[in-house]
Amino acid sequence: MSDYVRVAAQELQDFATAVFERRGFAHDDAAFIALTLLDADRHGIASHGMQRMAMYDHKLRHGMIDPSARATVVSDAKACAVLDGHSGMGQLISRDAMRLAIAKAREHGIGLVTVRDSNHFGTAGLYARLAADQGLIGVASTNSNPLTVPTHAGHPALGSNPIAFAVGRGDDQFVYDAATSTVSLGKIEVLVKLGESIEGDWAVDGSGRVNHDSADVMDNIRATPRIGGLTPLGGSGELNAGYKGYGLATVVEILTGVLSGGLLSLDMKGQHICHCFAAIDLEAFGGAATVGERVASLSARLRAMDSVDGHDVLVPGDKERLAAARNRASLPIDRATFDQLAVIGKRVGVTPPAALPKTSGLESETAARQ
Amino acid sequence: MSDYVRVAAQELQDFATAVFERRGFAHDDAAFIALTLLDADRHGIASHGMQRMAMYDHKLRHGMIDPSARATVVSDAKACAVLDGHSGMGQLISRDAMRLAIAKAREHGIGLVTVRDSNHFGTAGLYARLAADQGLIGVASTNSNPLTVPTHAGHPALGSNPIAFAVGRGDDQFVYDAATSTVSLGKIEVLVKLGESIEGDWAVDGSGRVNHDSADVMDNIRATPRIGGLTPLGGSGELNAGYKGYGLATVVEILTGVLSGGLLSLDMKGQHICHCFAAIDLEAFGGAATVGERVASLSARLRAMDSVDGHDVLVPGDKERLAAARNRASLPIDRATFDQLAVIGKRVGVTPPAALPKTSGLESETAARQ
Repeated sequence: MSDYVRVAAQELQDFATAVFERRGFAHDDAAFIALTLLDADRHGIASHGMQRMAMYDHKLRHGMIDPSARATVVSDAKACAVLDGHSGMGQLISRDAMRLAIAKAREHGIGLVTVRDSNHFGTAGLYARLAADQGLIGVASTNSNPLTVPTHAGHPALGSNPIAFAVGRGDDQFVYDAATSTVSLGKIEVLVKLGESIEGDWAVDGSGRVNHDSADVMDNIRATPRIGGLTPLGGSGELNAGYKGYGLATVVEILTGVLSGGLLSLDMKGQHICHCFAAIDLEAFGGAATVGERVASLSARLRAMDSVDGHDVLVPGDKERLAAARNRASLPIDRATFDQLAVIGKRVGVTPPAALPKTSGLESETAARQ
Repeated sequence: MSDYVRVAAQELQDFATAVFERRGFAHDDAAFIALTLLDADRHGIASHGMQRMAMYDHKLRHGMIDPSARATVVSDAKACAVLDGHSGMGQLISRDAMRLAIAKAREHGIGLVTVRDSNHFGTAGLYARLAADQGLIGVASTNSNPLTVPTHAGHPALGSNPIAFAVGRGDDQFVYDAATSTVSLGKIEVLVKLGESIEGDWAVDGSGRVNHDSADVMDNIRATPRIGGLTPLGGSGELNAGYKGYGLATVVEILTGVLSGGLLSLDMKGQHICHCFAAIDLEAFGGAATVGERVASLSARLRAMDSVDGHDVLVPGDKERLAAARNRASLPIDRATFDQLAVIGKRVGVTPPAALPKTSGLESETAARQ
């Protein structure tokens, strides 16, 4: 079982902020980037949390991310706009793009902003929540390196291509945030770490057959060209409608790569990533409070349904809120990631955070199993 | 195997138009409704084609659909609006709602129109295509009677809740049109007709276990209260991410029932259905021709991928276009549906269409297997 340490949230925030400042970001921007990583870990989405520091640090050191880049407007027509991120930090480009979408929503009722030449932005859900926290509906998506294999194909052509949709505030905030592949690559990476095979219809080999060997899946994805990959939501083949997940992934590709005139997942190698953000003002629909109440009422009715298997019926956002409630003052960090932070800290001259003293069993919580 | 007859398209169009005229619709409106049914059959989506005539006729005769009802505006703020359909014919209410969304898109860049108290509207894809045919992006969705079982529950709470997204024109028109359940109920009804069991993870019983007995699934759905139902995309339980399809179905519920302030699938019994339509003007993204070319290019690259199993890699919309190419002058109609049309024709005093003479094997085509 993977080993975890707990780290004080504030210490982690301060450490990450300092690292990003050393890499050329102004304090407030560095703090925002750090916050997005903590946000992911806090909500139990470790694959998009501090685990990503090593990747960001590598890309910053090698000029693949330009810390000084800011988004510029390519085109702007009423509710819609296209931004160019100039290989800037995904979190900053995306924060600004969603702010623009929100401003357009205030002015036109809806705002839709697509972005090209950005970088990995963390979780799509965070940007959707930026809008929801302000009383609007927020939608966010991104393309990525090719990971998902189209139905009947043997190579990946689409990214994990997630969709996020958020509305409401506080404990009844509805937050849908999911890749259009059956699982995110992170879930398979966790199984490799644990030395376990894949039970579900999560990945296929180069012949389109289900691949239960987690290490083999990762090797294939790192091959050139990539062999096999993730199944779209609905799984391999047509039996359980994998073509629906493949179609959804292609919709995301259109919203991101096509509408922004930027790079497609097909041609992507870790850079020049494209996103799409939308915000919807709720004035026409009764206003934020009214819509929030209706969402809360729907959610309550779903949660009240009898469970058939001992697991509660949940609503998108519930699981992450439960994790966040456990992770207010301190966060669980995977041992390997924790060690990586020490390496990064040494490299830039910032003291890494300390592991909190062991308490009753918290370190063994299987928070890795997201 | 189900028996099919072929019927001349024009004869079918004239027949359906005359029937709807007898039921109180003006000629042009009757013709539009008829066209939507033929459009479904033409594209191989028989479950939403002439097969629905009996249901519409029943609802019209019993006052559940008001042929004279037209949508009125509940609220309107810039890009967004809410319409009340007053239990009118779904096709007419929806055509008008999408027209309004398109008009708003011309004015604001995007239009988003939600509808409450409407009726079954046919395929979501048709309305998305109305916008795409005019050079915009079209999006359409609807809620429905509860059919889909939330992850860990034993009863249905959400409709098939489809999402449609269309962009481009002609042979490269991208048309995604799919329920957020693994399959539509129609696929299970076909298996009942054929006396076959369900191979896939399509439905669950009242204990959340996969139900392979097609007849049992239909019996359960007709019970009061409904027992078990369709699985969300991703299947039963959590193994293959059924919670993602459940989450998507809930997003559709929010866009339709919640935003319109209308009836939720939870409370629905065949009436007062809610829809959501959106149109996006492509001016900011390079214009319709440029976006169309990029979509065509992406589609060509996907179709060019090597197949691993003898089935071509397709793009959403391809399959339906292939069917339409076979069904220009005549359409395949299931024998049982054909007989129903004769009953309806007799009831209203309109001569039903004739079956075309048998030709080489066309009647045995398994067009039912959509």
